[in-house]
Amino acid sequence: MVSRQSDVDPAVIETAEDIEAMRIRGAATIADAAAEALATQAKRSAATEPDAFERQLRAAAKTLYETRPTAVSLPNALRYVLRGMDGETVSDRRATTIARAEEFQRELAQAQTTLGTIGSNRLCDGDVVMTHCHSTDALACLEAALEDGKSLEAIVKETRPRKQGHITARQLREWDVPVTLIVDNAARRSLDEADHVLVGADSIAADGSVINKIGTSGLAVNARERGVPVMVAAQTIKLHPDTMTGHTVEIEMRDDAEVLSEEQRADIASDAGDADDGLVVENPAFDVTPPRYVDAIVTERGQFPPESIVTLMRDLFGDAIGEPWEP
Amino acid sequence: MVSRQSDVDPAVIETAEDIEAMRIRGAATIADAAAEALATQAKRSAATEPDAFERQLRAAAKTLYETRPTAVSLPNALRYVLRGMDGETVSDRRATTIARAEEFQRELAQAQTTLGTIGSNRLCDGDVVMTHCHSTDALACLEAALEDGKSLEAIVKETRPRKQGHITARQLREWDVPVTLIVDNAARRSLDEADHVLVGADSIAADGSVINKIGTSGLAVNARERGVPVMVAAQTIKLHPDTMTGHTVEIEMRDDAEVLSEEQRADIASDAGDADDGLVVENPAFDVTPPRYVDAIVTERGQFPPESIVTLMRDLFGDAIGEPWEP
Amino acid sequence: MVSRQSDVDPAVIETAEDIEAMRIRGAATIADAAAEALATQAKRSAATEPDAFERQLRAAAKTLYETRPTAVSLPNALRYVLRGMDGETVSDRRATTIARAEEFQRELAQAQTTLGTIGSNRLCDGDVVMTHCHSTDALACLEAALEDGKSLEAIVKETRPRKQGHITARQLREWDVPVTLIVDNAARRSLDEADHVLVGADSIAADGSVINKIGTSGLAVNARERGVPVMVAAQTIKLHPDTMTGHTVEIEMRDDAEVLSEEQRADIASDAGDADDGLVVENPAFDVTPPRYVDAIVTERGQFPPESIVTLMRDLFGDAIGEPWEP
Amino acid sequence: MVSRQSDVDPAVIETAEDIEAMRIRGAATIADAAAEALATQAKRSAATEPDAFERQLRAAAKTLYETRPTAVSLPNALRYVLRGMDGETVSDRRATTIARAEEFQRELAQAQTTLGTIGSNRLCDGDVVMTHCHSTDALACLEAALEDGKSLEAIVKETRPRKQGHITARQLREWDVPVTLIVDNAARRSLDEADHVLVGADSIAADGSVINKIGTSGLAVNARERGVPVMVAAQTIKLHPDTMTGHTVEIEMRDDAEVLSEEQRADIASDAGDADDGLVVENPAFDVTPPRYVDAIVTERGQFPPESIVTLMRDLFGDAIGEPWEP
Amino acid sequence: MVSRQSDVDPAVIETAEDIEAMRIRGAATIADAAAEALATQAKRSAATEPDAFERQLRAAAKTLYETRPTAVSLPNALRYVLRGMDGETVSDRRATTIARAEEFQRELAQAQTTLGTIGSNRLCDGDVVMTHCHSTDALACLEAALEDGKSLEAIVKETRPRKQGHITARQLREWDVPVTLIVDNAARRSLDEADHVLVGADSIAADGSVINKIGTSGLAVNARERGVPVMVAAQTIKLHPDTMTGHTVEIEMRDDAEVLSEEQRADIASDAGDADDGLVVENPAFDVTPPRYVDAIVTERGQFPPESIVTLMRDLFGDAIGEPWEP
Amino acid sequence: MVSRQSDVDPAVIETAEDIEAMRIRGAATIADAAAEALATQAKRSAATEPDAFERQLRAAAKTLYETRPTAVSLPNALRYVLRGMDGETVSDRRATTIARAEEFQRELAQAQTTLGTIGSNRLCDGDVVMTHCHSTDALACLEAALEDGKSLEAIVKETRPRKQGHITARQLREWDVPVTLIVDNAARRSLDEADHVLVGADSIAADGSVINKIGTSGLAVNARERGVPVMVAAQTIKLHPDTMTGHTVEIEMRDDAEVLSEEQRADIASDAGDADDGLVVENPAFDVTPPRYVDAIVTERGQFPPESIVTLMRDLFGDAIGEPWEP
Repeated sequence: MVSRQSDVDPAVIETAEDIEAMRIRGAATIADAAAEALATQAKRSAATEPDAFERQLRAAAKTLYETRPTAVSLPNALRYVLRGMDGETVSDRRATTIARAEEFQRELAQAQTTLGTIGSNRLCDGDVVMTHCHSTDALACLEAALEDGKSLEAIVKETRPRKQGHITARQLREWDVPVTLIVDNAARRSLDEADHVLVGADSIAADGSVINKIGTSGLAVNARERGVPVMVAAQTIKLHPDTMTGHTVEIEMRDDAEVLSEEQRADIASDAGDADDGLVVENPAFDVTPPRYVDAIVTERGQFPPESIVTLMRDLFGDAIGEPWEP
Repeated sequence: MVSRQSDVDPAVIETAEDIEAMRIRGAATIADAAAEALATQAKRSAATEPDAFERQLRAAAKTLYETRPTAVSLPNALRYVLRGMDGETVSDRRATTIARAEEFQRELAQAQTTLGTIGSNRLCDGDVVMTHCHSTDALACLEAALEDGKSLEAIVKETRPRKQGHITARQLREWDVPVTLIVDNAARRSLDEADHVLVGADSIAADGSVINKIGTSGLAVNARERGVPVMVAAQTIKLHPDTMTGHTVEIEMRDDAEVLSEEQRADIASDAGDADDGLVVENPAFDVTPPRYVDAIVTERGQFPPESIVTLMRDLFGDAIGEPWEP
Repeated sequence: MVSRQSDVDPAVIETAEDIEAMRIRGAATIADAAAEALATQAKRSAATEPDAFERQLRAAAKTLYETRPTAVSLPNALRYVLRGMDGETVSDRRATTIARAEEFQRELAQAQTTLGTIGSNRLCDGDVVMTHCHSTDALACLEAALEDGKSLEAIVKETRPRKQGHITARQLREWDVPVTLIVDNAARRSLDEADHVLVGADSIAADGSVINKIGTSGLAVNARERGVPVMVAAQTIKLHPDTMTGHTVEIEMRDDAEVLSEEQRADIASDAGDADDGLVVENPAFDVTPPRYVDAIVTERGQFPPESIVTLMRDLFGDAIGEPWEP
Repeated sequence: MVSRQSDVDPAVIETAEDIEAMRIRGAATIADAAAEALATQAKRSAATEPDAFERQLRAAAKTLYETRPTAVSLPNALRYVLRGMDGETVSDRRATTIARAEEFQRELAQAQTTLGTIGSNRLCDGDVVMTHCHSTDALACLEAALEDGKSLEAIVKETRPRKQGHITARQLREWDVPVTLIVDNAARRSLDEADHVLVGADSIAADGSVINKIGTSGLAVNARERGVPVMVAAQTIKLHPDTMTGHTVEIEMRDDAEVLSEEQRADIASDAGDADDGLVVENPAFDVTPPRYVDAIVTERGQFPPESIVTLMRDLFGDAIGEPWEP
Repeated sequence: MVSRQSDVDPAVIETAEDIEAMRIRGAATIADAAAEALATQAKRSAATEPDAFERQLRAAAKTLYETRPTAVSLPNALRYVLRGMDGETVSDRRATTIARAEEFQRELAQAQTTLGTIGSNRLCDGDVVMTHCHSTDALACLEAALEDGKSLEAIVKETRPRKQGHITARQLREWDVPVTLIVDNAARRSLDEADHVLVGADSIAADGSVINKIGTSGLAVNARERGVPVMVAAQTIKLHPDTMTGHTVEIEMRDDAEVLSEEQRADIASDAGDADDGLVVENPAFDVTPPRYVDAIVTERGQFPPESIVTLMRDLFGDAIGEPWEP
Repeated sequence: MVSRQSDVDPAVIETAEDIEAMRIRGAATIADAAAEALATQAKRSAATEPDAFERQLRAAAKTLYETRPTAVSLPNALRYVLRGMDGETVSDRRATTIARAEEFQRELAQAQTTLGTIGSNRLCDGDVVMTHCHSTDALACLEAALEDGKSLEAIVKETRPRKQGHITARQLREWDVPVTLIVDNAARRSLDEADHVLVGADSIAADGSVINKIGTSGLAVNARERGVPVMVAAQTIKLHPDTMTGHTVEIEMRDDAEVLSEEQRADIASDAGDADDGLVVENPAFDVTPPRYVDAIVTERGQFPPESIVTLMRDLFGDAIGEPWEP
């Protein structure tokens, strides 16, 4: 439950409650709301001492942060805005905080488009792109390339268990991109036809590890083996500066039913008795791709080899990447 | 249609017709029938000259061979039996041919059991085995190990599109092996828990390439990357001495419907018009795993690194591996 | 043809025309002239409003840029100088622009020497260096090491088709460095004797890919396989921040005659008829070496692993590496 | 002998003499004393012109630097403090220099603790860590993780010749960490049980090469081959911006007696005569691990892939990494 | 205890008892005695029926085999001799068995010399050889090369824990080979000076895996990484046809005291209480080198890439490598 | 000079002299003449004792062998024929020797055609083949594929220094194969267009190393890196059973003038004085490709992975591959 500290503006509390209740959801939407809330706090603060002002802002940030501490875009928004607070007077601090929040929101609104433009520069006319899962950041790169007049083709992995590849395929067909749909098992065989592997990211760790939809890492290893470059499209709100390495990210385990229907389960276990507990379904949502199998991470701030993404994190969020952040 | 050469025994013709009409099917069943037919031809031949006898046998072999020249076990059976024909008289040639056919059939009947015993020696008590698709040769290795008192666990890939992993899982549950079922995309993540990758083979080329269910090669590349040895279980009737390398094997393309229902297709193509021909499904049945990603091929004649499987082919089928075979 | 915008100083136009007509040529010479031209524009500008001043400078930059948009050092010079323009008054902007241009020119004049000093620190007394093609930046590293009293030897690849290795060999012999000249085919065999591979660069992409004389990438792959580190010497005017990866760079195709004389062609085609169009010569000037085969890029701003060259690009040319630059 | 330049404060001379005589020793202690000495020089300087003040400070730095130019933390401290001198007046320069020195000392005092906190984030509850040699920076990571309530186990390589692994083992047993002690030869076999390789560093070159106790590089190569990530713990005073690559670092050769007792030597040479000079002992103190075998360098400023450590060097010590530094 | 079957000759029983009591020990000595015993059994057998003769021989083999079933040379000798029994009469079977035993013993007596001659052909004049542990088979290669007039140098790893490298060094010094002794940790650094890595083998599995002194596998991985070929010297009595892969071999764990003295243990555990059971020493005698890191296995029957050692096993011991052998 | 032993037939002496004087030259021609000479010796021998007959034959073989002991096809022919001598009487030994010689000659005459047929089975319709140097064995594979109706294209490396690629190109143009001619430096760039690398061999060592025209090994390393299989076409007379590994083969150094004209040399050395001995040209004829970069060796006896070529050597030339052969 959202803690109600004195000095934290009711509008901030409301935003925090909306985030907690998932009325505000989605990485970009959360980030935008958090920046907005800090700006509101800055505008409405009654603090007369600069230190008190800063304390209030940090209290507001803390209130927001604690609603969903694992939603990577939330602390990113808060850190970015607080880093902009500057000056020795309340009015200076207020003004710089508000300006920083507006800058964040303005850039966020443009981020996917900018990212798409940058990413499209990796694609040549006539290229064939293999996709995994569904990512609007990844699609933004393809869209920008198409708008630039480049002709592209796509090999779309269906992406079991939830087959989000179908969503990608539909979007690409809307843009009239020729699509070859394959099962995930056929990826290595089709890599010989591909010029790029293009995926999105759930988050990106400080060492350049890419946490993304289960199957990404196996695809990336095969792509390197076949000589096909791997391109990850991810806005900077996906950067995870608190994560020292992908392996410390807890991977969500999803419902068995995505993998196995009750009927199928019964069929498998039929000869093994009614309450067969020897059959376990493991359904991880994500896996971790080591940086050495990724060629480029494309963000709205430019393209980075995974080994240097830490320099972007330091620019955006400050030094000592890896220390747990405290508002 | 089966050609009816004079001198070819009616029983041979009948067997040929049954193979052609797929009334006789399955690699082992075809091989057994072909050897039986050659033995019958040898028994019933009225030839009085040794050369005429040999010509008849070759005509019978040719009749059989031409029914399904791509069924790898068929020429293997024929080559193996004909190579046993020896001696300078009709009666010697008849006797040696019949004896060779009987030896072939006897060994074929024992092959899977023997293979299982040999393969089980790669498995230690407590090992975790990752499987792909469904292969009775592979399962024979697990069964032999279980009978030997070893405790095993299995990670079973469902193996899209047809999910034959479910059949494997059911068999293993019957044997009370703890099974963790995963989607194919989760394989790399689970490899850290596996001691072996164990698969069967559709056929094996002269250079040790393994042609097997789509997805095998991608799994093998990841297994090597994670340091997990890859073991292929395949009776010698799967050896393909005429094929120099996996890449010259024509890969069967299967029905789109295994990958995409009509409804799903309509959904993807919805905004792209009724007769959308920009959406193609590619559904290859097999892929080719290069020998350098396979650690051992287990047959009923022993275990071989893929690089030396050619020596087994030469033992069984004679010199000049790679020359097209003519009965 | 150079566009004549009002407000663009005639001296700028003249420089632009000289660049276009290739009277001004060579990466460093073009960069120097472009910086000089911007300084002139700044000095002579009659603008009274800061914004107008900036518009004039950008118009001048655009005029210069459009003469040879693919000459990588030209936009680099323009971007670098414009990034230095600062202040809220015309006089501030003028002063900062001129100072920045002078700084650029001053550093450019020193760049090769500085680069040589830095690069020479990778070389130890007694080292053997293998070279490919001819690069004054690469030679500057050797010269600095020699001046530092280090004894060096060189294995010089002749570098077909134009055998620029001969120029390198001549320079090294002038400095009394023992030279072993080899054909390009002998490189792998000679790598066991080499402590370094040292090459220059035509340009360097944002992901650290090195575009250099044809044959560099094959050499780099072999050097990694033999454990010999690869060192690329390239002034920062060779950095190509608009290019996301080497594979999007258009590679110049040079004249067939460099590869095959008319006589040789006639001899090859002799039995194939007069107008033999089945014989094609492909003569690419450059190839692309992926960053993972390069150990260090040495510039006058220091040494960088290829994976972090993007951080240098950001320092020099600003954020959002990969977005097409517009003056 | 310490040169006595006029204008250099006697306290600075005294510190220099203490460093030279190794009364002040250890990377951190030297760095702290050097910063302190510069602060003292700044405080006591009688200079009345800003340039003279700067000259004095540089003379003091030079005096200190020349006592042990290969002690990597010494120039780092000096460079860092001098880079902080700012302003156009003597008093500004004095104040900024003193403040910078204090900042350096304050951060240095916290560095190992901060580094430990950052490094501990790479470790999960239940992880097994393999160590080589003895490093307090590495141990700080383990200590922080233990204090965080994580349960860890250690595989400790004894680290011939001096078996500093015993010191590591003792410390870990004090913290009640279960320790498995192995000879260095057993490392590859034990890597299958390890989740991390964790080592310290003697120094780190500009290209990310890690110079550390002999045996580190062989361990790192095997760790990569077995898929175990390698983590290097090193405070920023270990960064070696003047060294372009590990291979140019002169490796100290230590006493034969660490490897071979007189008795053992006599035994080996017994049949080869009294004065056997055909038996040489080579006892290098360190080796060089190429950056591509290291996953992360953990410093008190955050975690860096080795390929981007150069960006940290530039932040701390300025541009042109690789140019020999002159105070 | 040795079982006393009727029909088994008392001399065979006596040999069996000597092997069991380790009065007969060492791979070659055991193999020689076992062949001798079978020859004796053949000579003295009173069987009058060929089948009874064979049963007696197999009973004798079984009696011998069961004394030390894991001593790899014992079943090899028995299998080899029994495979030579041929003919349809008692006298034929007796004669062929005796002849085969004599052939085995004769070849065994020559094996190391022959192996040395073959192995020496891999060595060129002036080569530097790195050794691990002490192996008379490996030394035989060096001796033959020296006798052939080749000049060699050696880098000798001391080989903790038992430092058998000292024995190797002494032997090499006797032959006047210049020796550089290093700790095992220094191996990777010294590999750049080596032309070969040369080791022996405890046994060799059917897939070409080499089971040898702990540390061999780590050395082999580094040798491949540095481009130094790895050569294993092993007589055919070391071949282990029943073992499918090195990972199924049970590795002997040796005494802690080889690694840690009581005093050292007490020192490490000092602060952790009297009965510290948190400190474990693991002291495996051997490790397993995968075939892909070995370039050649040199036997007295010729040189084999590890991938084809199975063909030699089949020649010597018959088909179905991998099936458990039963006399 | 050819030694004249009594009992050696004058016709053998004459053949030996022709080989020595290089009147008989070329691998196949020498092999054919040597077999013919042994047959003649067998026919004309006046020996009345079987042992004397064998001694004569061996003396003849020795006479022939010593003329050019490094011509690999010569000992191969002699070994092969002598291995066929069998029986206990002079007449049996004569007959078997003659028959064996005839078999050898007959097979030799067919070898290239057979090899071509086998090799062509690796090629699919539409494939693009990259060639290096000129090899009639390699061309035989292409010819057979073309005759089989397959459509092929070729990328022909010119192969400095002697540009034998031009001969290959001419032959291919005669067969109307589309040819793209490239300099050797362009090979890696063109590998993305190639389905195969196809080369011949000067000789093949017992470990599968391929000794072939300088540049082969660098090409093979790049082909593996790009995923293009490497196919070596070599008749069995190229097998070199005495050579354990390619690195022990002495590589012929050819004339400087192939690399550098006098004029070019003078130009390079111009500033370095008249008698410049600091410029050395190294012009090795061959290099060694390690077996792990070769996918298949195609002979007239079938196709072999390089790791199993030793089994073919053993079949043809007997056991103990690697022991120096003595007639």
